[in-house]
Amino acid sequence: MAEDTTTDDTATENAATDDATRDAEFTVTPDTVEGDVDYRELLERFGADELTDEQVARFPDPHPMVRRKVFYAGRDVDRFLDAVERGSAGNSTQVDEAAESGETVSLVTGVGPSGPMHVGHAMHFYHAKHLQERTGAHVYVPVSDDEKYFGKDLSLAEVGEYARENLRDLLAVGFDPERTRIVVDTADADVIYPLAAQFAKHVTQSTMEATYGRPDNVGASFYPAVQIAHLLLPQLVHGRHASLVPIAADQDPHVRLARDVAGKERFDVDKPAALLSKFLPTLDGPGKMSSSDSAPAIYLTDDRETVEEKVQTHAYSGGRSSLDAHREHGGAPEVDVAYQLLAFFFEEDDATLDRLAREYRAGDLLSGELKAYAAEKIGDLLEGHRERRERIDDLEAEFEKYRLTDDERERALPEGVGRFD
Amino acid sequence: MAEDTTTDDTATENAATDDATRDAEFTVTPDTVEGDVDYRELLERFGADELTDEQVARFPDPHPMVRRKVFYAGRDVDRFLDAVERGSAGNSTQVDEAAESGETVSLVTGVGPSGPMHVGHAMHFYHAKHLQERTGAHVYVPVSDDEKYFGKDLSLAEVGEYARENLRDLLAVGFDPERTRIVVDTADADVIYPLAAQFAKHVTQSTMEATYGRPDNVGASFYPAVQIAHLLLPQLVHGRHASLVPIAADQDPHVRLARDVAGKERFDVDKPAALLSKFLPTLDGPGKMSSSDSAPAIYLTDDRETVEEKVQTHAYSGGRSSLDAHREHGGAPEVDVAYQLLAFFFEEDDATLDRLAREYRAGDLLSGELKAYAAEKIGDLLEGHRERRERIDDLEAEFEKYRLTDDERERALPEGVGRFD
Repeated sequence: MAEDTTTDDTATENAATDDATRDAEFTVTPDTVEGDVDYRELLERFGADELTDEQVARFPDPHPMVRRKVFYAGRDVDRFLDAVERGSAGNSTQVDEAAESGETVSLVTGVGPSGPMHVGHAMHFYHAKHLQERTGAHVYVPVSDDEKYFGKDLSLAEVGEYARENLRDLLAVGFDPERTRIVVDTADADVIYPLAAQFAKHVTQSTMEATYGRPDNVGASFYPAVQIAHLLLPQLVHGRHASLVPIAADQDPHVRLARDVAGKERFDVDKPAALLSKFLPTLDGPGKMSSSDSAPAIYLTDDRETVEEKVQTHAYSGGRSSLDAHREHGGAPEVDVAYQLLAFFFEEDDATLDRLAREYRAGDLLSGELKAYAAEKIGDLLEGHRERRERIDDLEAEFEKYRLTDDERERALPEGVGRFD
Repeated sequence: MAEDTTTDDTATENAATDDATRDAEFTVTPDTVEGDVDYRELLERFGADELTDEQVARFPDPHPMVRRKVFYAGRDVDRFLDAVERGSAGNSTQVDEAAESGETVSLVTGVGPSGPMHVGHAMHFYHAKHLQERTGAHVYVPVSDDEKYFGKDLSLAEVGEYARENLRDLLAVGFDPERTRIVVDTADADVIYPLAAQFAKHVTQSTMEATYGRPDNVGASFYPAVQIAHLLLPQLVHGRHASLVPIAADQDPHVRLARDVAGKERFDVDKPAALLSKFLPTLDGPGKMSSSDSAPAIYLTDDRETVEEKVQTHAYSGGRSSLDAHREHGGAPEVDVAYQLLAFFFEEDDATLDRLAREYRAGDLLSGELKAYAAEKIGDLLEGHRERRERIDDLEAEFEKYRLTDDERERALPEGVGRFD
């Protein structure tokens, strides 16, 4: 398959980079991820803790993203794991037992509906499902249509259309409807606005601007308070408990702000813990996969042929520019995007992943072959996803199973709101 | 009743002031009214239009506050009056006819629940009821509990308690429940938040700060967008029509901002018209009656004795410091707060009001007598108000009659919000 490597315009003669000499010029904010991220420096900037091997081992049946430290850092992860262990007595498969033990745990991980969902989104939701299955955790998924409307050149109607598409994907993941709540900010404003208002008083405009920069409009000013409502919502519904926010590292400022507000005495909540991931690279190299990159994202609705075509054409290769050079010197899996996709999420088996890296480095596995394998694995997941997605006939009825109940809404609301007796 | 004037510590030897030489140092913002307001200069600052005699004459059965130009200025008042005339064919008593004519008109006037309601609030609501009866107007009353929570040292629970008390007063006014909607921001957030979010994108943080000053918290930043939702709500529910906002002049910046946003092409609404009133003075002199003044406010729950005591003890008098001087030189009704209360609202009959001024100036009417008369008139209104207020057994059930219906909520929401089909 030499033609693949030789014609691959993303291949490079010496793709391996040295972490220590990498240019540290990069930007990571909730709005923008630019440049080649130095994750260690990012930790220092953000002040989070690196995930330790001991912590990884404490996760029940740790997901590949945890085992391979794609989730590479966090805040108060031990406190969350303590609660998980108390709840499940370390038994990773006894969900019902965990559910009945009285030790509630929860996860919060959301999506901003400004486009179709891609595999960078999917990996977080499938990870959350994995953790839900092993811990009995409540999973809360905020869909921040307001945020995307405030921040993008989109109308509310356009954002609403994306929200409905994203909902289909969320439902296709297969979360337990009994323990999963999906909240759409404008559609669940009866709860979200009073909560956001409650927290907004504790976020000064100056703190907002120091965290996010000068906002364009007053909606963007307010949105951090909405985000705090998202992150504290499970505790407001189910009572104070250990809640974990597993998200890409660029969203950490939201968590920090929520933790600051949660720490105030008047609120009966714990600071949410955070589990921070690296960014799934764009097909053409480092950066964070998004719907607005020059290289296409792999969407959850892509069929096998489309995935194969996108990966073969666009995935940045760690292979050599000629077959002979590749056979002789080998490729660099650490910069090869097809390999990274497998390592981040799509190859569950550690031994297989190691073998692929070994064979690629040795020059036995060609770039085109590696890409084909990655495309197949991605296609496997997307095929199941797409089938479940297409089975959703009545979105409204399916979504209803995942919405806050009246009782949950009432419990979440601040004291006195909506009381007219 | 010489003892009244001679012992009145608010009396002054030469109380009459000259408008032209008055100190023009005063502050009027939505949060603060301070100093002796020069209403003409305020008009120039705000850029509103003085209310003309022709406009006054066009109001059907003009309320004393209009006749006496307590409502002294406005914006687009003629446009509102045109619609009223088209709706009612100038017949001031045919409400049903106006209602059926197809020309919808509406009024918006709200309250921020940070304390018990006083007569300064009541006059606006009773005026709105008067205008509703004569035009068939829909009346929308926003209760901005969020605003007061953001801006005052009050918890949401405390603001909620005031909101419930204020609701009792609003219900006691006796608005037509078919044509009146009371909206509580946190309790009606299902509609208010999506609308406010929609408008928030069109209010830059800089415009917000230029209008209201630097906000303390991100809730205060966002609130102007909520206010815009309030002012445009009748048109969003009932379709584009002439809507009038009769409010105290300090609230004009809210109207200006709403008019700016309403003027944007994408929103199918007219700019709301404004009818701006002078401030009901505090008992101890110029300024705006509020619950936080040194002189007590007259609350809607005050009984006759309390009103009499407050007026006699605290009302700034335009009378002379001795009986003899008063008999000889006469009093100054234009600065006498008891007289102003009558002139603003509590004396409906113009001839009586003129007679009182004449007799006061002539020295025939003593300050204590004028105060006693004012207290009696205020007591008359409050007695009826209190009786209606006390008849409200089940606040929730009564309030329900004035809440947006499901259909109205759906019509008001921005396109696509809450749609999951």
